[in-house]
Amino acid sequence: MLDRFAAVVGSAHVVTGDRIGPDYHHDEALVGTPVAPRYLARPATAEETAELLAVAAAARVPVTARGAGTGLSGACRPAENGLVISFERMAAVLDIDVDNQVAVVQPGVTLAELDAATSPHGLMYTVFPGELSASIGGTVGTNAGGMRAVRYGVTRHNVLGLQAAMPSGQLVRTGGKLTKMSTGYDLTQLIIGSEGTLALATEITVRLYPRPAHSATLMAVFTDLPAVMRAVPEVLRTGVAPTILEYLDTTTMEAISRAQDLELGIAPEVRAAAEAYLVIGLDNRERAPLDTGIGLLGELLDTLGALDTYVLEGNSARLLIEAREKAFWSAKASGADEILDVVVPRAVMPEFFDGATALARAVDAHLVGCGHAGDGNVHMAVYCRDDHTRESLLHRVFALAIELGGAISGEHGLGRIKTAHFTALADPVALALMHGIKQAFDPAGILNPGVVLDGKVLG
Amino acid sequence: MLDRFAAVVGSAHVVTGDRIGPDYHHDEALVGTPVAPRYLARPATAEETAELLAVAAAARVPVTARGAGTGLSGACRPAENGLVISFERMAAVLDIDVDNQVAVVQPGVTLAELDAATSPHGLMYTVFPGELSASIGGTVGTNAGGMRAVRYGVTRHNVLGLQAAMPSGQLVRTGGKLTKMSTGYDLTQLIIGSEGTLALATEITVRLYPRPAHSATLMAVFTDLPAVMRAVPEVLRTGVAPTILEYLDTTTMEAISRAQDLELGIAPEVRAAAEAYLVIGLDNRERAPLDTGIGLLGELLDTLGALDTYVLEGNSARLLIEAREKAFWSAKASGADEILDVVVPRAVMPEFFDGATALARAVDAHLVGCGHAGDGNVHMAVYCRDDHTRESLLHRVFALAIELGGAISGEHGLGRIKTAHFTALADPVALALMHGIKQAFDPAGILNPGVVLDGKVLG
Repeated sequence: MLDRFAAVVGSAHVVTGDRIGPDYHHDEALVGTPVAPRYLARPATAEETAELLAVAAAARVPVTARGAGTGLSGACRPAENGLVISFERMAAVLDIDVDNQVAVVQPGVTLAELDAATSPHGLMYTVFPGELSASIGGTVGTNAGGMRAVRYGVTRHNVLGLQAAMPSGQLVRTGGKLTKMSTGYDLTQLIIGSEGTLALATEITVRLYPRPAHSATLMAVFTDLPAVMRAVPEVLRTGVAPTILEYLDTTTMEAISRAQDLELGIAPEVRAAAEAYLVIGLDNRERAPLDTGIGLLGELLDTLGALDTYVLEGNSARLLIEAREKAFWSAKASGADEILDVVVPRAVMPEFFDGATALARAVDAHLVGCGHAGDGNVHMAVYCRDDHTRESLLHRVFALAIELGGAISGEHGLGRIKTAHFTALADPVALALMHGIKQAFDPAGILNPGVVLDGKVLG
Repeated sequence: MLDRFAAVVGSAHVVTGDRIGPDYHHDEALVGTPVAPRYLARPATAEETAELLAVAAAARVPVTARGAGTGLSGACRPAENGLVISFERMAAVLDIDVDNQVAVVQPGVTLAELDAATSPHGLMYTVFPGELSASIGGTVGTNAGGMRAVRYGVTRHNVLGLQAAMPSGQLVRTGGKLTKMSTGYDLTQLIIGSEGTLALATEITVRLYPRPAHSATLMAVFTDLPAVMRAVPEVLRTGVAPTILEYLDTTTMEAISRAQDLELGIAPEVRAAAEAYLVIGLDNRERAPLDTGIGLLGELLDTLGALDTYVLEGNSARLLIEAREKAFWSAKASGADEILDVVVPRAVMPEFFDGATALARAVDAHLVGCGHAGDGNVHMAVYCRDDHTRESLLHRVFALAIELGGAISGEHGLGRIKTAHFTALADPVALALMHGIKQAFDPAGILNPGVVLDGKVLG
C-alpha cells in the first residue's frame, strides 16, 4: 500500500509505522485512547486527494481526514490499519474576492490565517469557534459554530461552495460564489457536518462580511444560573441583535479568570453573591446605535434581576472574550473528564440544566460550564472519573436533551466519542436515510468508519 | 386505486377525472401545457400523507405535491395518471413560540397567513417571495427566496426543522427549534429545495425575527444597467446591510408603474435619460441609524454615477415594493414567453447581462427584467415566441451562467421546465450523487418523476 500511496503523493509525503508522529494519533477530545494509523499521506492537490481515496477504496483501507486536529469529539482519531490524509500541504488562501465578499481556501488554511488574509480588505469570516488554529476543512467537517453564531450563523450558513474528493476517485463541485441557489439537491449542505464520512473538502468557498468598526461588551451578574438562561429570550426579543450572547457559571468564570489573570473589576460583594454571568457582545459600523443598545439592554437586565451590569471597555472586553474562548482548556486543566456540547431550544435551557444536574447528582458526578446561550448550546464540563458511570450519565443527559427537542451536539460533532449514543437515540427512519446517503457517496465504507453511523453503544 | 386512496383520506377527500378542477393541472409557469392528474387527494394529517405515499408506491403511481400552486417552474404540474396530494386541509399554524422565536406550521399555511399570525407578537418570517399567497410547503420545495434574502437569507436559512412523509409510508423528523446542530447528516437541508422529489414536508419549523420598527427606501436612477450592477458590490461594501437591494431596467419600471398606477415623482428629464434603477430598502429597530445609512448611501450613489437618488416616504415606498413584487404579472401581461431566474456571483452580473443580451439578439429575442441584485439573482423576461428557438436560447443562457460560476435557478427551482437543461449541463459526478440520494429516499421513484432528475433535453 505504501508504494501505491507514494505513487500518488511522492514517497516524501507518505509515511508508515513509527515515522507517524503521535500528534496524528488523536484530536483534543478528552475521552478515548490515541490510535496510531498505519499510513499518513500529505497530498498537495485535490487530484492527489481523490486518487488517494480511489487507491484506499480499492484496497478497503479506512481513511480519516485530518485538519489541525483541534476537534473535540474524536472525529479525526484514526482507524487502526487506516490511512490518515493530512491537509497540511493544502493550506493556501486561493482568492479573496472583495466584490463578491467571498474567500476561496484550501482545507488546511487555519481560521487565524483566513482572518489575517481578510483583515486588510475590511472583511471577515464570521465563524469563530474557540480555537483559531482550527483548519477550515476541519470546521466544514464538524459544522463548527462558536460565539458569533448567534448573529452570523454556524459554518453551514457561511460556506457557499465546495470542491470535494470522493472515494470513487472523482472530484465534485457544489455551490459557488452564490448566496442562494435552487438547482438540484444541496450537496454543499450535505457534506458540511458529515465529519469526513461522505467526501473530503479540497476547496472551500466561504462568505465574508464587512468588519464592523465598533464593538461593545456587557457583562451582567446574576445570583442563579436559570435566571441567566431565562434572560436570554428577553434580550433577543429587543431586536438588539447581539454578536455574542454567552452564559458562564461562577465556577467557570473563576477558572477562566484565574487561568488568564483576568481582572474585571467586579465589586467583592457582587462577586460573593454571583452564581452566573451573562456576557453580551454587540458590534456595529457606527458607535451611536451601540450606545443605545447598551443602554437598553442594561435597563432590561436590571429588571430581569441582574445584581450588577458592567460595560467592559476595549482591553478587558477582549480579554474576557479570549478567556471564554479558552474555557475548554481551563476545564481540562481542572480535571474535567468530558465536555458536553448539547443543544436545546434556548427557552428550555433552564429545564435542561435542572434535569442534567439532577442526573449528575444521582451518580455523584458534577457538571459546570458555560455556553452559547443565544443558541441553546450548552457546554458542560463533566467531572466523573469512572468511564462506565460517565458514559451511562451522558447517555441519559443526551436522551433528556432529545426529549426536550434538542440534539446531542450543537457544534462539536459526534466523532468517535458520541456516535454510539447517536445511533442508539436517533430516529431509526432518519438513520436509515443517512445510511442510504452514505451508500451513495461511499459504497465501500472507507471514509471514517464508525463516525456518524455504525457506532457501538457504550452507555 | 380510488378506493385505496379513499380508505386513507375518506371518500370525500379524493376525486378523479373531471371532478379534479383545472386549477390542479398547473402552476404559474409560463411554459408548458397543463396536465390533468388521474387522482387528487387532500390528506388531513401527516399520517394520512405518509399512507397515501405508501399506497402510491406499492402501485407505482407517480405523486406530485401541491401547495398554493404559485410556483413558476412547473414543479407541481402533475404526471398523467398520477396522484396530486394537495395540502389545503393541512393549513394550521400550530405554534408561535415567542421565546424560541420560531413558528411551527402545516405545509398549506400561506406566507400571508403566517405573517398575520406572527405580527401580533412583533415577530416575522423573513422569506418574502413576490407571492404571499404561496404556501410554506411550496416554498420549502423550491427553496424560495425573494427580496429580503440579501439580508435574511432564503428558505433554507430560515427553516430549522421538518416532519416529512416518505414513500415508505414512514414519517421522519429532522432538526427542531434549534438554530444550530452538528448531529448527523442535515436531512432538513436536503429536503429543502428538492421540489417534492425526496419527501413531502408535513410540518415545518421556521425561524422568526423581531419586526424592525423603522424602514426606509432609496431609489437611484442610472443611465445604464451595467452601472447599476457595478454599484451593488460598492453598496454592500459599506456595511450598511440592506434588507432589499434590487435592480430594475427601465422597461420593467415603466411596466410595473403603469400596472400599479405608481407615481414616484421622478423629474421628467431624469426619467427620459433613465435606463436602470437601483432600489435599496433598509430597516432597523431605531430611526437614527437608518438616516445615517440613507445619507451615506445617497452620497455613494452620487459618486457611482446615479443621475438622481430619491428617498421614498412611507406610502410610495410601500407601493414601489409591492409593484416590484408583482413584476412577474406585469411581464406576463406584456406577453413574456418565459421568466428566467438565473443566479451568478453578483460581481459578474454585468458580464452575464451583456452575454445573455448578445445571445438573445442573435435570435431576435428580447430580454428585459429586474432582479435581486444583492444576490446576483437575475430575473429576465424572455420575449421569444417560438418554443424551439427559445429553449435553445435558454440553454445557451444557462450554460453562460454556469460558465460564469452561476446556476440555472436562484429561487424558482427546476420544475418540469428547467430539469432537462439542468441534467444536460450539470456536473455528472454531482448528478450521480443526486441519483443515489433519490434512491435512498424514494426507491420506487414515485415522487415527482421528471423533476430535478431524469428530464429530457429540450434545448
